[in-house]
Amino acid sequence: MSDTQRLSETVKELLSGGREERLAAILGHAHAADVAALIRELGPPDQVRLFRLLGAERAGAVLSELDDQTKRDLLHCLDEREVSRILERMPADHVVEVVEELPEEEAEKILDLMEEEKSEEVHELLEYQEGTAGRLMSSNFVAVPEGLTVGQAIEHIRKTKTGDDAFYVYVVDDHEHLVGLVPLHRLLTTDPAMPVHAIRGEDVQSVTVDTDQEEVARLVQRYDLIQVPVVDATRRLLGAINVDDVIDVISEEATEDIQRLAGAAGDETVLDPLQKVFPKRMIWRLINLATAVLAASVIGLFESSIQSLAILAVFMPIVASMGGIGTTQTATVVVRGIALGELTRSVLVRVLWKEVWLGVATGAANGLVIAIIAYLWKGRLLLSLILGVALLLNMVVAAVVGTLIPVVLKTFRIDPAIASSVIITTFTDVFGFFSFLGLATLLMNFLL
Amino acid sequence: MSDTQRLSETVKELLSGGREERLAAILGHAHAADVAALIRELGPPDQVRLFRLLGAERAGAVLSELDDQTKRDLLHCLDEREVSRILERMPADHVVEVVEELPEEEAEKILDLMEEEKSEEVHELLEYQEGTAGRLMSSNFVAVPEGLTVGQAIEHIRKTKTGDDAFYVYVVDDHEHLVGLVPLHRLLTTDPAMPVHAIRGEDVQSVTVDTDQEEVARLVQRYDLIQVPVVDATRRLLGAINVDDVIDVISEEATEDIQRLAGAAGDETVLDPLQKVFPKRMIWRLINLATAVLAASVIGLFESSIQSLAILAVFMPIVASMGGIGTTQTATVVVRGIALGELTRSVLVRVLWKEVWLGVATGAANGLVIAIIAYLWKGRLLLSLILGVALLLNMVVAAVVGTLIPVVLKTFRIDPAIASSVIITTFTDVFGFFSFLGLATLLMNFLL
Repeated sequence: MSDTQRLSETVKELLSGGREERLAAILGHAHAADVAALIRELGPPDQVRLFRLLGAERAGAVLSELDDQTKRDLLHCLDEREVSRILERMPADHVVEVVEELPEEEAEKILDLMEEEKSEEVHELLEYQEGTAGRLMSSNFVAVPEGLTVGQAIEHIRKTKTGDDAFYVYVVDDHEHLVGLVPLHRLLTTDPAMPVHAIRGEDVQSVTVDTDQEEVARLVQRYDLIQVPVVDATRRLLGAINVDDVIDVISEEATEDIQRLAGAAGDETVLDPLQKVFPKRMIWRLINLATAVLAASVIGLFESSIQSLAILAVFMPIVASMGGIGTTQTATVVVRGIALGELTRSVLVRVLWKEVWLGVATGAANGLVIAIIAYLWKGRLLLSLILGVALLLNMVVAAVVGTLIPVVLKTFRIDPAIASSVIITTFTDVFGFFSFLGLATLLMNFLL
Repeated sequence: MSDTQRLSETVKELLSGGREERLAAILGHAHAADVAALIRELGPPDQVRLFRLLGAERAGAVLSELDDQTKRDLLHCLDEREVSRILERMPADHVVEVVEELPEEEAEKILDLMEEEKSEEVHELLEYQEGTAGRLMSSNFVAVPEGLTVGQAIEHIRKTKTGDDAFYVYVVDDHEHLVGLVPLHRLLTTDPAMPVHAIRGEDVQSVTVDTDQEEVARLVQRYDLIQVPVVDATRRLLGAINVDDVIDVISEEATEDIQRLAGAAGDETVLDPLQKVFPKRMIWRLINLATAVLAASVIGLFESSIQSLAILAVFMPIVASMGGIGTTQTATVVVRGIALGELTRSVLVRVLWKEVWLGVATGAANGLVIAIIAYLWKGRLLLSLILGVALLLNMVVAAVVGTLIPVVLKTFRIDPAIASSVIITTFTDVFGFFSFLGLATLLMNFLL
């Protein structure tokens, strides 16, 4: 990291010194990802200044590395002709990632300014839905006809222009249907006279254009793939998805789960501007306000009990809080288990039983501890017992709710991470207040 | 997925029918990852039965694909000689992943039973600390001396036995120091008479044996690498880490963050047995109990106010609950920003200000809404205003605490995800109860 920091210091110095020529030279040697990281750290005017020092080719590479927010800010400051000239030199799948961030009208204008061939290719990719394999795939892959020998295949690859990031060679029939795969390493180490179809792997993992990107990620993780071929319904080879794009998907999906579970938007980033974050945060805070009012209204039912015995108000949040950790722990492990494909139908009953037993065991232990603490603190035996029992009951409710709600959501094809702490702890808040205050009210004659 | 389900059904039928021969044939054709998934779904006796039907070679491949828990359960049922015979045929880095799951004594016995060469290689890898590049690297990489021509290099690769998963060729000097990299694709498409050093990339991203695995993952994500070479302090090439192992690291680290933020253990999985999960859950539930008692003791300070005015008890959890969502949302986005390397020192102040303003804006909006609801519900103007103001104050506290605590933890090299909802909401629980009940007590004369 210190290399990157040094680069950042140097660039900031040169920027403030106005030494554009020296800057351009340094940026020319830095990795596009490092330049992108640099740009994110700068204020808007310097971002544009730095970006304009890059050649059109490198500007495209840097643009591909930027996060969506910075990308949008930056493009906003450039004119359409400038943008289209940069996009023209980028592969179509990277252009898609840029234009999908722009307002539709602006995107259309920019695409109109580009070479027709490239803009058509982009339009084709844009037809596929966001979040599908079609949208992720690139046309930068190597395919050879099945009739060739290894030597001819190598000759074929030499003539085809592709980047250095081809690692597999796909074998196709006369109609471009995918019929096999040969790792470059195997091609290189086989006798050139051997026919390609003799060394191809036939059992190729592939996806179709409408496969969900999460499914693509699961395949890559399961079978340790470096690239996934994308085919149409007839197995015609249309493109390939590289592992680096899949890693981005894995990372994005994890962010989505982490943040949704906490009642934050799945796509929020720490660098998003205030006005963009405000509505996203506000929605969940309002929902939380509604659930809090619901819990308060349960307490309201027992206002006269509290009037008679104010100490109930001191203890009641303990029951709710313990239900909260119970549901949160359980739901989080369950949601992660679903995301990783570990929680399948065949293990569901086993998991539910485990959670219920965990609820009973930890509930009994914690219930005993709190009963002792409460007795030592206030000296009221019956009240302490009621507290312990209410806590135990709430932990069991937490186990059931925390396991089943994510599973049910998944069954209805709703993201289980929506079962965020906000939603799910409502159950244990309400049940916790109700059981503790209810038991105390029933036994009020013995408590006073 | 339906292919996998069909396989699973067939295997279960054959198992209950006792048709071992047919089973062995089917397992012989299935992908190791699919066999591993199958094994996880079975009960312990059937797990061993199925596993024993695999040849030693395939048994090793399947073992590498199993999760830690199932791996341990399965190995527990096999005798040491059987295990060592399987491990012998696995690459050393995969053997390490198996033996690190075993009790030390058992691991030593198994290693002693193995061929000396392989067991020494394993011992060497075990010297590196868990979670470092040394522990992740494999010796399955391709290196060629810098003096060769492209044609000679290809000849050299042909003679070296490596698997199909070599995608880069490393260029080394006479002392095995890493001096460059050539993607296989470039090697294949260059004139065989060209010297290798003329086409090598010199600016190779590498790591040392003690680099943290998170740092390796960050490099792979930043520079879109397929394999990361591992060198010692003098840049001597020792091994390479493949992207599929890095993907596992990324996935594990995400699980750790998601679960720690929810007060669950970072390494818990939904399939872990009850007795293993119990202590992990219990610790956080006990910590939560302690923080809940702390919050209750704050309420205890105001017991006489509640005695005079029970309605305070109805409203007080609303203030705490809103503080909870505030800290949780903020801390989660901040922790994720730190994990993704987006929250650097240079943007910290900007992020803090944004969060404070979000706290003020959403606090004011929610405070107004709750004041109106409370007034319409109970008709007490002053109390409703106190409620709204306490909520606003607590949202601002939530913003500061939620941003700063993870950042401070990170500064002290403690995992920021430890700032779980359990810990961090304690601040807003305590402050929420204190501000609402405190304000109400101060103004009690006007409230009664």
